[in-house]
Amino acid sequence: MKVRVLILPRRGLLDPEGRAVKEMLQDEGFPVRDVKVGKVVELDVEEGTDIRAIAEKYLVNPLVEEYIIE
Amino acid sequence: MKVRVLILPRRGLLDPEGRAVKEMLQDEGFPVRDVKVGKVVELDVEEGTDIRAIAEKYLVNPLVEEYIIE
Repeated sequence: MKVRVLILPRRGLLDPEGRAVKEMLQDEGFPVRDVKVGKVVELDVEEGTDIRAIAEKYLVNPLVEEYIIE
Repeated sequence: MKVRVLILPRRGLLDPEGRAVKEMLQDEGFPVRDVKVGKVVELDVEEGTDIRAIAEKYLVNPLVEEYIIE
């Protein structure tokens, strides 16, 4: 099965890439309120694999990132 | 509204970070067949914004990346 872990900077933390994209899109005239840039890790794993364990132990830094499994 | 653009390396193209994560997880005993690592761009925009245009013009390199809007 394929599972995706989306990893985004926590609200309020520094996200220079998100800020750069936001400012560029606003300069281009797009009505953008906010942009965050993070990572997506797409895993092709056996059914029943503990994705949460993988995410929390190896992929995400909970001090500065939050994640969504989908 | 919040929209996410997931940007992943095209199948068959070099993805050194995905490969590193796959090998590390396999070494740790997880039944992982494949891993891709890409980017997620989360946009908070006005209703009706043309996300596809933003993605194709500014965020994605179609030669080496594919994207999903969600």
